[in-house]
Amino acid sequence: MSYRYSQAWNRDNADFLADFHRSTEYGATENGGIDRQAGTKEHGQVRDWFVNTATRAGMVVEVDRIGNIYATYQWCGPEAESVLIGSHLDSQPLGGRFDGAFGVIAALHAAKAVNEKFEGRSLSPRFNLTVVDWFNEEGARFTPSIMGSSARAGLMDTDQLLATTDSQGTTVAEALEATGYAGTDQGPQIASYAEIHIEQGPRLERAGVPIGVVTGSWYTQKLLVKVIGEQSHTGATFMSFRRDALVAAAHVVIAVEQAVKNFEDEKIVTSVGQLDVLPNSPIVVAREVNLTVDLRAERKEDVEAARAMLLDTFAEIAAERNVEIKAQDFDIRTHQYFPEAGFKLVEDAAKRLGMDTLQLETMAGHDSIAMNQIAPSIMMFVPSAGGVSHCEREFTDDAALADGLRILTEVATTMVCEEWASAERDSEDRGSEERDSERRES
Amino acid sequence: MSYRYSQAWNRDNADFLADFHRSTEYGATENGGIDRQAGTKEHGQVRDWFVNTATRAGMVVEVDRIGNIYATYQWCGPEAESVLIGSHLDSQPLGGRFDGAFGVIAALHAAKAVNEKFEGRSLSPRFNLTVVDWFNEEGARFTPSIMGSSARAGLMDTDQLLATTDSQGTTVAEALEATGYAGTDQGPQIASYAEIHIEQGPRLERAGVPIGVVTGSWYTQKLLVKVIGEQSHTGATFMSFRRDALVAAAHVVIAVEQAVKNFEDEKIVTSVGQLDVLPNSPIVVAREVNLTVDLRAERKEDVEAARAMLLDTFAEIAAERNVEIKAQDFDIRTHQYFPEAGFKLVEDAAKRLGMDTLQLETMAGHDSIAMNQIAPSIMMFVPSAGGVSHCEREFTDDAALADGLRILTEVATTMVCEEWASAERDSEDRGSEERDSERRES
Repeated sequence: MSYRYSQAWNRDNADFLADFHRSTEYGATENGGIDRQAGTKEHGQVRDWFVNTATRAGMVVEVDRIGNIYATYQWCGPEAESVLIGSHLDSQPLGGRFDGAFGVIAALHAAKAVNEKFEGRSLSPRFNLTVVDWFNEEGARFTPSIMGSSARAGLMDTDQLLATTDSQGTTVAEALEATGYAGTDQGPQIASYAEIHIEQGPRLERAGVPIGVVTGSWYTQKLLVKVIGEQSHTGATFMSFRRDALVAAAHVVIAVEQAVKNFEDEKIVTSVGQLDVLPNSPIVVAREVNLTVDLRAERKEDVEAARAMLLDTFAEIAAERNVEIKAQDFDIRTHQYFPEAGFKLVEDAAKRLGMDTLQLETMAGHDSIAMNQIAPSIMMFVPSAGGVSHCEREFTDDAALADGLRILTEVATTMVCEEWASAERDSEDRGSEERDSERRES
Repeated sequence: MSYRYSQAWNRDNADFLADFHRSTEYGATENGGIDRQAGTKEHGQVRDWFVNTATRAGMVVEVDRIGNIYATYQWCGPEAESVLIGSHLDSQPLGGRFDGAFGVIAALHAAKAVNEKFEGRSLSPRFNLTVVDWFNEEGARFTPSIMGSSARAGLMDTDQLLATTDSQGTTVAEALEATGYAGTDQGPQIASYAEIHIEQGPRLERAGVPIGVVTGSWYTQKLLVKVIGEQSHTGATFMSFRRDALVAAAHVVIAVEQAVKNFEDEKIVTSVGQLDVLPNSPIVVAREVNLTVDLRAERKEDVEAARAMLLDTFAEIAAERNVEIKAQDFDIRTHQYFPEAGFKLVEDAAKRLGMDTLQLETMAGHDSIAMNQIAPSIMMFVPSAGGVSHCEREFTDDAALADGLRILTEVATTMVCEEWASAERDSEDRGSEERDSERRES
């Protein structure tokens, strides 16, 4: 890869990196990560910084009811359709500093760069350009994840989401109020959407390619599992008298991990990340365990086969351990396809910049997947060192971040000037049934 | 068993059962249990009721710094030594209504009955008689368990215990203050102690015997286990990249349960009751799990062998799963022996009442075990239906509870009139080293 920076580009680049690193001070953890769960004080602080920065750059800021922040260059007037670019500023507990934040701050600087291109030129945009910070993509404090963009896309009910509570009983509405982001605006009309994000996987690094063009998302679903045994005294209850919910749950956790052995390597991932014990006292045999199983695969049929296999195994565990195990399907996200016109748009832009690209699917969920349901969307990746994320040692170096800003700026420029996805949209409408019957399920 | 009730006895009996059932209304749960964790509002309410009832019966109430309540018939004056009888009014979360509460309310009515025996008679007691309600025997909200009696016995430091916090950060001192039981009294000098409790095991029921004479306690210890993996994204992290602390912890839970297979049946119990996942997010592979292992056996060597075996297994799990597993010894309680003079005292009393007895050991911990470190102590059991406890369906019927009150009244009468344990104490002092070298460890 050879970079050809203009003077202006170099300056933007330095400003961008400085802003990005400054933003990571909000909620910074000792080991180089961030802890900025949605609606916390630290999340409010980084959003305040974002709003100030966007306002100073001449953007008009709106906040909607679910707390999404839209900062817009209103070149075509306040009522015009807008191209949205962005991601999310919230993080996992002890999360990495790149996940989400990189996409928002790259979008902020891409928008500024596009704005500069238009100043004093004949080139005139067809759409406004909005930098968006979606509320609660991570879903750690308030479930489900991808909350703000899903609400905006009409996939989830805003009133229900506002009433959702965290483990302390605080509602989303209260958390938004407390941080100053309980808005009343509608936000702009969305013409199309683009997002850049760290890959959170090892494929770009393995291939030595700076930009990933995301063609679609894995099929995913969760299972809410409730294991019901009987509470008893750890000291006084003989082993044969017990109906220990935690021992049964341990077998569930292991069964979930072992399920992947029946499938092709790196085509499926299965996990239990959340597990709560009741009553969780050192001297009481657990009466109940609630846990969340997360199944994701490139192929829908693999998720379904893993699910069926696990339900059988859960029934066996329940019978063997004399407990009850209930499993409920939850948060099914069907295989999504981004429009092909977007792949070409990114690949052409990369060619102009002298950068290589790799087409790949996303295993993780993203706001772009929700957006793609209502507007043609583009998803791009930059490499993640070692493929790790959702942890403090998540890392992408400055050069790779700068590559991300370059491609996003180039892509956003095209997006605000062209109806890039219109042809695609038509052909998609005609061909969607043959191509993807799953699509209508979501 | 044939009961020969006097008229007076019948009246006391009805009063006792009415009081016992009334007390279970404080913190009553839907399914017939109680939820009265130490220092909660409900715990404060039942303690208020206890203090009022004792005061009305002519007892003098004192409260010490760790919140133990002492209600005394001061027949021999306020400075005289006292025989203590009692147990605890706190419960596990969704616990049973008999565990602890039965012993306190039986003691209340036994004391009243003993007091009536003395009124207008020449029979005069050598000691005062105190009904005690120990603070926080259960240790569910504030660890460790057996807190109040251990503080009183000088086995734990009161200032440290007062600073102990629950999961919400509330200290013991604050909880005592909030419920009105942050006392300043010393409490009476303790001549000897007796406690009656539900068995929480199946042995009396199996044998068809109404009264258990507890000869000693099992050897117990806990292990605080920390499993350290690495946090990552459940969606984006290939299985081979993971260091999942929860999967490793599941193997630990199963290893703990399986450890008993190497020992004689019903001579050992092993449990994990408490397990906390970090960060406990549905879409994050766990970075850390903290859990408490509880090992209890009739024989010290079995606990030690199980511990050694488990530490080896933990090391294997850590190596296989590429995680770190740390285990720390905690809360070791050595095998305790109650004085033999007490067995005889109870057995003689039972003979006078026409009741059978069975000698057995306690698998569970009790306040009497702490008390026995500083004063000769007697521990008695009544049967538990199905052997279950620490759960809402814990049950002992009224007839068995009344049997318990009868034996406790008879035993307490002897205790306040005789220096029952003095000979034992002497012989114990001489013989303790040969008999029980473990005793000095605790």
